[in-house]
Amino acid sequence: MLENLLNTIRSPEDLREIPEDKLPILAQELREFIINIVATKEGHLGASLGVVELTIALHYVFDTPKDLLVWDVGHQAYGHKILTGRQEIFHTNRQLGGISGFPKRDESEFDTFGVGHSSTAISAALGMAIASKLKGETEKQHIAIVGDASIASGMAFEALNHAGVTDTNLLIVLNDNAIGIDPSVGALKNYLTKVKTNGEPTSDNIFEALNLDYTGPIDGHDLNLVISELKRLKNVSGPKLLHLITKKGKGLRQAEENQVVYHAPGKFNALTGDLNPKNENALPPKFQDVFGKTIVELATTNEKIIGITPAMPTGSSLKFMMDEFPDRAFDVGIAEQHAVTFAAGLATQGFTVFCNIYSTFLQRAYDQVIHDVCLQKIPVIFCLDRAGIVGEDGATHHGIFDLAYLNCIPNLIIFAPRNAVELRNIMYTAVQGLELPIFIRYPRARGSILDWQRTFEKIEIGKAEILKEGTEAVIICLGPISKNALAAISLLSTEKQQTIGCIDMRFLKPLDETMLHKVFNKYNNVITLEDGTVKGGLGTSVVSFAAAHNYTAKIETLGIQDVFPEHGTVDELMDMVGISIEKIKQRLLKS
Amino acid sequence: MLENLLNTIRSPEDLREIPEDKLPILAQELREFIINIVATKEGHLGASLGVVELTIALHYVFDTPKDLLVWDVGHQAYGHKILTGRQEIFHTNRQLGGISGFPKRDESEFDTFGVGHSSTAISAALGMAIASKLKGETEKQHIAIVGDASIASGMAFEALNHAGVTDTNLLIVLNDNAIGIDPSVGALKNYLTKVKTNGEPTSDNIFEALNLDYTGPIDGHDLNLVISELKRLKNVSGPKLLHLITKKGKGLRQAEENQVVYHAPGKFNALTGDLNPKNENALPPKFQDVFGKTIVELATTNEKIIGITPAMPTGSSLKFMMDEFPDRAFDVGIAEQHAVTFAAGLATQGFTVFCNIYSTFLQRAYDQVIHDVCLQKIPVIFCLDRAGIVGEDGATHHGIFDLAYLNCIPNLIIFAPRNAVELRNIMYTAVQGLELPIFIRYPRARGSILDWQRTFEKIEIGKAEILKEGTEAVIICLGPISKNALAAISLLSTEKQQTIGCIDMRFLKPLDETMLHKVFNKYNNVITLEDGTVKGGLGTSVVSFAAAHNYTAKIETLGIQDVFPEHGTVDELMDMVGISIEKIKQRLLKS
Repeated sequence: MLENLLNTIRSPEDLREIPEDKLPILAQELREFIINIVATKEGHLGASLGVVELTIALHYVFDTPKDLLVWDVGHQAYGHKILTGRQEIFHTNRQLGGISGFPKRDESEFDTFGVGHSSTAISAALGMAIASKLKGETEKQHIAIVGDASIASGMAFEALNHAGVTDTNLLIVLNDNAIGIDPSVGALKNYLTKVKTNGEPTSDNIFEALNLDYTGPIDGHDLNLVISELKRLKNVSGPKLLHLITKKGKGLRQAEENQVVYHAPGKFNALTGDLNPKNENALPPKFQDVFGKTIVELATTNEKIIGITPAMPTGSSLKFMMDEFPDRAFDVGIAEQHAVTFAAGLATQGFTVFCNIYSTFLQRAYDQVIHDVCLQKIPVIFCLDRAGIVGEDGATHHGIFDLAYLNCIPNLIIFAPRNAVELRNIMYTAVQGLELPIFIRYPRARGSILDWQRTFEKIEIGKAEILKEGTEAVIICLGPISKNALAAISLLSTEKQQTIGCIDMRFLKPLDETMLHKVFNKYNNVITLEDGTVKGGLGTSVVSFAAAHNYTAKIETLGIQDVFPEHGTVDELMDMVGISIEKIKQRLLKS
Repeated sequence: MLENLLNTIRSPEDLREIPEDKLPILAQELREFIINIVATKEGHLGASLGVVELTIALHYVFDTPKDLLVWDVGHQAYGHKILTGRQEIFHTNRQLGGISGFPKRDESEFDTFGVGHSSTAISAALGMAIASKLKGETEKQHIAIVGDASIASGMAFEALNHAGVTDTNLLIVLNDNAIGIDPSVGALKNYLTKVKTNGEPTSDNIFEALNLDYTGPIDGHDLNLVISELKRLKNVSGPKLLHLITKKGKGLRQAEENQVVYHAPGKFNALTGDLNPKNENALPPKFQDVFGKTIVELATTNEKIIGITPAMPTGSSLKFMMDEFPDRAFDVGIAEQHAVTFAAGLATQGFTVFCNIYSTFLQRAYDQVIHDVCLQKIPVIFCLDRAGIVGEDGATHHGIFDLAYLNCIPNLIIFAPRNAVELRNIMYTAVQGLELPIFIRYPRARGSILDWQRTFEKIEIGKAEILKEGTEAVIICLGPISKNALAAISLLSTEKQQTIGCIDMRFLKPLDETMLHKVFNKYNNVITLEDGTVKGGLGTSVVSFAAAHNYTAKIETLGIQDVFPEHGTVDELMDMVGISIEKIKQRLLKS
């Protein structure tokens, strides 16, 4: 650290005392600080490195927290957090009890709106700007900082369409680095590329057409230029857009060169930038890679197979198919709504369509699932990645509502593969042809089977599996979480172990009623276990079955009980919500 | 009818035999046919009248059903239905067992994609176009017909953003009549107005910027011009957009002059166009008008009150507030996602925000409800209009999932006002300040109380109400449907009546557990009754409560049992799903 400017900043007020010519030094310090912490504590790296200058400029020019900054998504807000009083606790980022990896209202008055999912910032900032107008606070500024991948999402367009007919102090900073988590796609991306290539807007200025005052493109790493433009725009009335060109990962060579990997690189050497070596060969594969490799395997012999991802080719491993079969694998960008109905359109023409969406992001396409897919019984194959508790990304990202929000929809199948072989086989089964759409949910996790690439076997739809017989009590699980149940049972005395059965329902829909009749005829003590909300999920389904058939066994439902779990490791959070091995064991000792 | 051309058309093949110079006569006949049927059978009028020429031209130029037409929303597809073999059954439109008011795949091979909700057509048609490309069907055409209100919705933008980077035979016909159900709004609408005023695109062509081949604007009622343009575009490769100017209600003076009313005018005089006289003064008001009048009343004395509707000012009656307080009442267009997060942004700044969305359309903003509102505990007041079974609009429009999809989300209140006074009082209560967002759901229906404008009273959150005491069985209802329960009880013998209690839970969340304890301690026979999906709604909540507390009463859950009810009158559909007065009575006779 050259001058230790960063250590003098406890709030943006301190920042504003620094002479402008020293700010580039602060930028360097802030970058180093982020790199040093993320190198050991992990987290999102590239996005925050890319907006160091912008972050300093925003807090320098605007009177935060009175002026309101809304960061879209929030991966890029580490610098913001560090400059707004959280430098000393930044090392607790994403840890249980520590600060969140995203802006969060509870955490700081500088975090004006909680984020995590993309494309919400313009709507929220426009709401704030209208509020100020109604209050007569004419000087107050409202700034939404939005990436180019995020602004292409439909929700952002809806907000732009509204913003353009208002007279508000709304500034949209378009942070254009041509990448989200994976490289940006789509016609708007191509348009922006043309603008950048020309150094000025083309004759068709899409933002001016929407009645926004457009400035740019300018170099987002030229701190003094950014400051002078922001100062100028402060005095421009009405909705406006500043188009910044930045580089994701700026300041760390490897992060600039390998932007996808350094989005969230895990631990790395802060000095060299090199990733810590990993030896993953001996480990069972991630569910994600099982999906990616299996779809390639299936698509090799079946020309009708299509793969779709909304902006998560790397995270979902659909990338494998995009590399092998680029004509049949589509990254449609952050466009979950379009992804689902586009899939339905393809499927009406006889294609077998896999649509891979993170569980938490399928919330964005809920209406399309109901209205375009299930109502029409179009057999799209949905793979819901990151289902269940996701860990450090926290409350915005847990995939815990899918069981409930899908279970109430007619005409669909819900399956949770317990392991890699089951995921592989259900994909195979679905490709053979189903009459209904299927939703296959699996966690961000490794399976437990090394030799998973076995001969395909068809899975019988709606068939549960007894994992262990018992005599007195039974745990009815759904998918991978059954591993916790079995582990908990194994911790009991041998005698006790024999009394407890364990069943994997596998299908939440259709429920294996034959199995449930057997269960309720045999056991007086039934425990359900799921890594989703109990309300509307497996627990209430089993309880409803029992009520409908007048079974009187005692039923206890384990799962997420009407709370938003925060961030922490998956194990920590499972323990907090009562579905860890230890918590299940404690529960079993009571029965 | 001049020549009876229409009667000769059993399919578009017949249409294509007619010489082009006679087509304007056919257009006149088609208009008259639509007017005559809708005048007596009711339905959507204005939209279909506006696209008579376009409909004829599309089927004349394109080789339907091989070429694929996707109508967005589908209000405008009556002419399409009549020309594609459904002329003789068109009088059954929207009736139980009759044809649907929207395109529907089950109904005809010409209906390539089921619609109802807006802005899905481009995604579906693009999926079909990609399918044809993969199959090598290079001549096949794919046409999405989209209104200007609908294309402004985020989902449509997502599809345009994808379409612009494909090389597909996709033609988007932008049917620009400057109105959806209410007049279109937003920056895109203003842009289109400028284009139409100039007679050609401005320097900033938003569609060209997205890499679509743009043609227009042209007069959509000039049949020969539309035909020649469609013929030309058939030979233009790649994604393209034809901008048509049309008039909603074209050909019926009153429908042209009063487009909002004649969107779906009810019965009218086919010759004069005059609406049938209605005498509604003696009737209790609709829930919608209770909402509209009450928000005005509250806003008069409270400057912090805001109203938001996504494109339904007339249907929701927020229009009343827009007329009185234009600065504080916002129609944001077909933009449910934006509406919700915009509401949240406003609420963070101390405003009391009512966001009125039809239950079925809130499905479009499910993620925003979870991620932007409930997770942050922002106390937005949601009014969910058209909750429950909506009747003739059918499967796409029933508001039957809201109870289930909201119930699983933490940090919210769900209330169903039984009558106008309860709606009025819960709005008053919410304005006093709640710590959580509230979702107030009510049907498209009249209440039962004439003198509803009583002094405001605060409602205790989470408090159920005993409507009738009993001794043996009890019906636990939620909101307005309790009227069916009471009516069913009243049809029983006096002796039997005394045995049956009736409770309105009012709040699905928080559940009145004190009341439920009383219920289960008193009754051995419990029936739940709701006008939504039983899975995840009231029924499963009561069953889960009983299981958690080891109550062993027999519980039966009445409501919608995992099906999509089709179209018909509300009474017919309630009977089909088992929640009509008669069906409840039959059920009570068994207990």
